[in-house]
Amino acid sequence: MSRFSSIEQLSDACSKLPGRDEKSATAASSRQDTLTKPQGSLGRLEELAIFLAGWQGRTVPALDKVAVIVFAGSHGVTARGVSAFPAEVTAQMVANFAAGGAAINQLARAAGAELSVVPLEIGRPTADFTTAPAMPEDEFLAAVSTGYDAVSPATELLCLGEMGIGNTTAAAALAASLFGGKGGDWVGRGTGVDDAGLSRKAAAVDAAIAFHGAALSDPLAALARVGGRELAAIFGAVLAARHYRIPVLLDGFVCTAAAAPLARLHPAGLAHALAAHMSAEAGHRDLLQRLGLKPLLDFNMRLGEASGACLAVNLLRSALACHAGMASFAEAGVSEK
Amino acid sequence: MSRFSSIEQLSDACSKLPGRDEKSATAASSRQDTLTKPQGSLGRLEELAIFLAGWQGRTVPALDKVAVIVFAGSHGVTARGVSAFPAEVTAQMVANFAAGGAAINQLARAAGAELSVVPLEIGRPTADFTTAPAMPEDEFLAAVSTGYDAVSPATELLCLGEMGIGNTTAAAALAASLFGGKGGDWVGRGTGVDDAGLSRKAAAVDAAIAFHGAALSDPLAALARVGGRELAAIFGAVLAARHYRIPVLLDGFVCTAAAAPLARLHPAGLAHALAAHMSAEAGHRDLLQRLGLKPLLDFNMRLGEASGACLAVNLLRSALACHAGMASFAEAGVSEK
Repeated sequence: MSRFSSIEQLSDACSKLPGRDEKSATAASSRQDTLTKPQGSLGRLEELAIFLAGWQGRTVPALDKVAVIVFAGSHGVTARGVSAFPAEVTAQMVANFAAGGAAINQLARAAGAELSVVPLEIGRPTADFTTAPAMPEDEFLAAVSTGYDAVSPATELLCLGEMGIGNTTAAAALAASLFGGKGGDWVGRGTGVDDAGLSRKAAAVDAAIAFHGAALSDPLAALARVGGRELAAIFGAVLAARHYRIPVLLDGFVCTAAAAPLARLHPAGLAHALAAHMSAEAGHRDLLQRLGLKPLLDFNMRLGEASGACLAVNLLRSALACHAGMASFAEAGVSEK
Repeated sequence: MSRFSSIEQLSDACSKLPGRDEKSATAASSRQDTLTKPQGSLGRLEELAIFLAGWQGRTVPALDKVAVIVFAGSHGVTARGVSAFPAEVTAQMVANFAAGGAAINQLARAAGAELSVVPLEIGRPTADFTTAPAMPEDEFLAAVSTGYDAVSPATELLCLGEMGIGNTTAAAALAASLFGGKGGDWVGRGTGVDDAGLSRKAAAVDAAIAFHGAALSDPLAALARVGGRELAAIFGAVLAARHYRIPVLLDGFVCTAAAAPLARLHPAGLAHALAAHMSAEAGHRDLLQRLGLKPLLDFNMRLGEASGACLAVNLLRSALACHAGMASFAEAGVSEK
């Protein structure tokens, strides 16, 4: 049986979100101000050290246990011609992940992070959400539960990502459900569709919004109806991370859209999450702005797979290296301002 | 005797700049297009791999030998009240570098890079450049030579940075000399001056421009007259890197200003250099735009010491990890577009 056996139970779990440990964050901030540099001169590195301290609940946080989880799912909406690549690429790429040949294998290793890949019934696509809910309730709850249970409470930083041909269309439909707007406001070229493909994506989103109507005003219902299994699993993992107070690095457009319902359900729902990068996918900038997330990197990437999240890990490590290792003015005998 | 014994000889060395190996760059670009990702979807990571391939002259470049060199110098212009910290902090921070307590010690370690600190007569400040050339010609050539000789030809990537109380004023004066504008257009708060200090910085730059006049129209003369020993050394190191075709990561405002004369002397003078980050120092954005350099990071940092350059190293490593380690579509049996 799934961890979440009803929408009410999941909804309740989404309303009980612990905050960060302010005492640790304050102590980390005070520590920063003693280190041999003009106060504030390490900019975002200082903010990151304080952020990690607050969520890990210790003045000097660590990043020894960094987990990367990539969820994969298949999408019925691919029947609408919304992707530049055939639907079988999802399973082929999962095999490539297992063989170690994908970008994320290299990036996770470079980040000193442990990679897990979680395929969610990739041989059985979700329903085409332009004419039916993508997932019935039990399937949705199972996917959320799988994501939740994939997170180890001992994790010190969680990087999330996805693989799923067709899922930028699902993410666009979800973003439109949560924040309003038409398909044309949220779709982008994904893996590289041409203009006709882009129009088909926008039309699919508009059709989904017309079909599901008012049901989409509930964030969890929107995730179930126009999302996908890997999006539901990312949502579950973000929720688990919050319950365990694990800081999260979100990847690109799809990953951010999958996490977004938690921000709609709770005003500080994504306070434990960082946007690793600004994707080249058209809707990501607007989505990050709506969520108040400022990306760490802007590298014009649009691969998914948690690639951007992994790329940001060593930036956080550098922040902690300074935080933990620098001498204070007093220790070093350096004159202050 | 210095490597460069006359301005003519240095000027000649600045005119003979090898380009990158286009064959390796093209081969690297072709390789990228076979890897299991939508073409171009790794964005800037792909560009970085190709950039490194071109300058290292091999299709699959390496980053095993990454050097960080921090040059330190003292500035007579500190007499004008242009810094929030006393002038003795330069020597104190050099001692802190030696003891391992500064930000750059932690960041170089996190980057897997070897740190060298090169103090340039820090017990003897340059002349106050508002009333005299900062350095006479022989001292200038000696500083450029020291920087040049600090670079090992075996280096695979060179990170450059500086330490020198007062040097954001020198950098602003140099930027104004090279690109026009008043002191107020180029000065910033450096280590944290107040409004009165900021006005004193602008006034010092304006006084220098008035004092040196037309002599500043020559980029090398400008570097000698309103720069500083660590800026001259950075210039020498950037020149050496170009002669050896070593790719360079520039740090913030001071480091970029020190490198800028090479772009004024030769249209592609900084083609081997990347801007590691956009500093919070006011003039950096404009300076990078003038040089056509797009920063890798924008972290609101303003420390110097090569801190931003080091922070970017692991981004380049990640680019190469993908470039070297990913499977091709054919190898992985993944369907193409």
